[in-house]
Amino acid sequence: MTHYPFASRMTGIEGSAIRATLKLTQAGLISLGGGFPAPELFDVAGLRAAAEQALQETPIAALQYGVTEGDNRLREMLAALTQSRGAHALPQDLIVTTGSQQGIDLLGKVMLDPGDQVIVERPTYLSALQIFRLNQVRILDVSLDNDGLDPDEVEHLFQAHRPKLLYTVPTFGNPSGAVLSVERRRRLLELAVQYRVLLVEDDPYSELSFGPAPPPLLALADEVPGARDWCVYLSSLSKILAPGLRIGWMVAPAAVLERVTVAKQGADAHTSTFAQLTAAHYLQAGHLPLRLGLLRTAYARRAAVLSAALRSCLPPTALSFHEPRGGMFLWASLSQGVQANDLLPVALERGVAFVPGAPFYADQPDPLTLRLSYATPPEDELAQAALRLAGAVSALSHSQGVIP
Amino acid sequence: MTHYPFASRMTGIEGSAIRATLKLTQAGLISLGGGFPAPELFDVAGLRAAAEQALQETPIAALQYGVTEGDNRLREMLAALTQSRGAHALPQDLIVTTGSQQGIDLLGKVMLDPGDQVIVERPTYLSALQIFRLNQVRILDVSLDNDGLDPDEVEHLFQAHRPKLLYTVPTFGNPSGAVLSVERRRRLLELAVQYRVLLVEDDPYSELSFGPAPPPLLALADEVPGARDWCVYLSSLSKILAPGLRIGWMVAPAAVLERVTVAKQGADAHTSTFAQLTAAHYLQAGHLPLRLGLLRTAYARRAAVLSAALRSCLPPTALSFHEPRGGMFLWASLSQGVQANDLLPVALERGVAFVPGAPFYADQPDPLTLRLSYATPPEDELAQAALRLAGAVSALSHSQGVIP
Repeated sequence: MTHYPFASRMTGIEGSAIRATLKLTQAGLISLGGGFPAPELFDVAGLRAAAEQALQETPIAALQYGVTEGDNRLREMLAALTQSRGAHALPQDLIVTTGSQQGIDLLGKVMLDPGDQVIVERPTYLSALQIFRLNQVRILDVSLDNDGLDPDEVEHLFQAHRPKLLYTVPTFGNPSGAVLSVERRRRLLELAVQYRVLLVEDDPYSELSFGPAPPPLLALADEVPGARDWCVYLSSLSKILAPGLRIGWMVAPAAVLERVTVAKQGADAHTSTFAQLTAAHYLQAGHLPLRLGLLRTAYARRAAVLSAALRSCLPPTALSFHEPRGGMFLWASLSQGVQANDLLPVALERGVAFVPGAPFYADQPDPLTLRLSYATPPEDELAQAALRLAGAVSALSHSQGVIP
Repeated sequence: MTHYPFASRMTGIEGSAIRATLKLTQAGLISLGGGFPAPELFDVAGLRAAAEQALQETPIAALQYGVTEGDNRLREMLAALTQSRGAHALPQDLIVTTGSQQGIDLLGKVMLDPGDQVIVERPTYLSALQIFRLNQVRILDVSLDNDGLDPDEVEHLFQAHRPKLLYTVPTFGNPSGAVLSVERRRRLLELAVQYRVLLVEDDPYSELSFGPAPPPLLALADEVPGARDWCVYLSSLSKILAPGLRIGWMVAPAAVLERVTVAKQGADAHTSTFAQLTAAHYLQAGHLPLRLGLLRTAYARRAAVLSAALRSCLPPTALSFHEPRGGMFLWASLSQGVQANDLLPVALERGVAFVPGAPFYADQPDPLTLRLSYATPPEDELAQAALRLAGAVSALSHSQGVIP
């Protein structure tokens, strides 16, 4: 066994717990694990036409090296999409990234030195945690309720720790499903200006809204003097079109964007022009609004089916959660004494998978929490999954002497 | 102007000089600048058929999230391609990367701490230099002649500096065009084992050979006991199929691959499955060997045209170079007193672009050197470009009183 001199940042770093869970396959298993979009709702025909058009009308642009910032046709489309969410953005205000995941990674490279401090929500997106850990920074977390993060706590942390950035998924948080209220959004923007802290807004889900949702921080920044200078906006076509394209984008102040572009030159030169041109032709054809309508309807129904089935099988003391208002996740909490990590093997035995909440915490995980994704399975399977999960919860509770 | 607290690694980092040059466009300019494959040789029809097949036969695999290691169909094809170059490789020995560029970046993350030492060739691939600089390591360089790097110098550096890795483009080096001899390859492998230094072999060009070329280090490693443990092999479909797909791969020892996979999870989750499945279907259809034949013939002719035209217009004292044996680049040296940086504006005025050699050096650049890429322009333009370049060299020499 050869021992290699790995970098110190790799010490104690583990692969994503979710990705490991995703490799579980067993006959009849219903997975509420991954944040995978509903595959039967992919617009395969629309994407085939777009790919065909990309290679027929723009073959060189689709196959040759491109500029690091991204193809101009796609940047125009993504700027328009950002505008449609209420935020002003020109094509030159954004860079195309290889998924919005890469946006977080590039910001880490550009902003973070070992020992720096960053703030995240409690709980937060686990791949963001992984990136911050690889950057060897100190991760501080701020409490979250159903209206998003607590701005008073944010102010306290800004004052006490002078963090480099705050990372938030303000609309349909992953895993929390929480939606930051408009009042809290304004307050957060004011705090960013006052304490000169970069707000990194990760917004993959806001278009998957089941009702009215607040505008992005990036949009509200226009109402708070100076706030736009502290806003970085990440989004992605993964959840609204197809993850396989790996197309994300970042809107950021010019000085940040310039350095992110340098970092991206080294990271992968540019995002696949083949995928970029296919996405550009797709968006240009105007298919997205119809597709979003289908997704919203399907996910709203799936969220309702899962919630109703869970509530009908289990008392709220055994599994408590807020009804999702959008996005892909239902975040739930077991009753005291029943831990999600213990529940998982019991649930797998009964044919249902989920992700225990622990990996979503920067530290001191709440062992009672779990994330259920309702986006992937069809409604009948979701109802079945809820039944199986309820059975597993009851079985585990009884075996541990917990009466829910 | 807002001042942001950027990471210390960004201090003094500049964007790629080549990428800046590539943005130069003027009517009638012939560019010998970028390492862009000949666009008229892209197999557009073959790729259209492959994309169509990917979306028709494997729509979910092409559009959904995939595993970080890469799609199994593509990994099988890439393992076979690696085998065809003489090295044993199974699908599980490799990871698909977003261009081989990402492979270098991931190795940096996984292996390098600030202050570590790495060895590169003098001159070497400039984006590798950029990545190493972002990792804040000390970069040492080793001399190169037409038979590749000097193994005695390598041994001296291994002994004196205990570097973490040595990065080399052994076959048709970028920018040098040099080919490491088989004897030196064996010696290098022995040194890697003896001094426990990872050899990072970047091999994008070996299939673009105009005659016989030595096997990769990865292949020869089987002949040197223990050497395979110290071999990392990077390659790419960019130069042999299309850069726009951003498909590269890395063959590495299991312990390295495991950590690279973790780093890639954070970097971009996985390479575009849409691009991966398109490439897999293309390779599966067996189109690559024919395409490679076309590319080899075209590039061999272009290299010959450029070389002959330069030799017919300029004495060897004014511009010295070795005839390329493969790959995409002619590396040349001006006569004393005529600097490539001074030549560039004169050449641009006459309608020809190239890349001065300086950015390819870790330090103390040789100001007389320049890189000419013959892959992109057709033959008549190459002859014209040589004429223009010769005119620029003569004009500059005379204006500076240099008699070549």
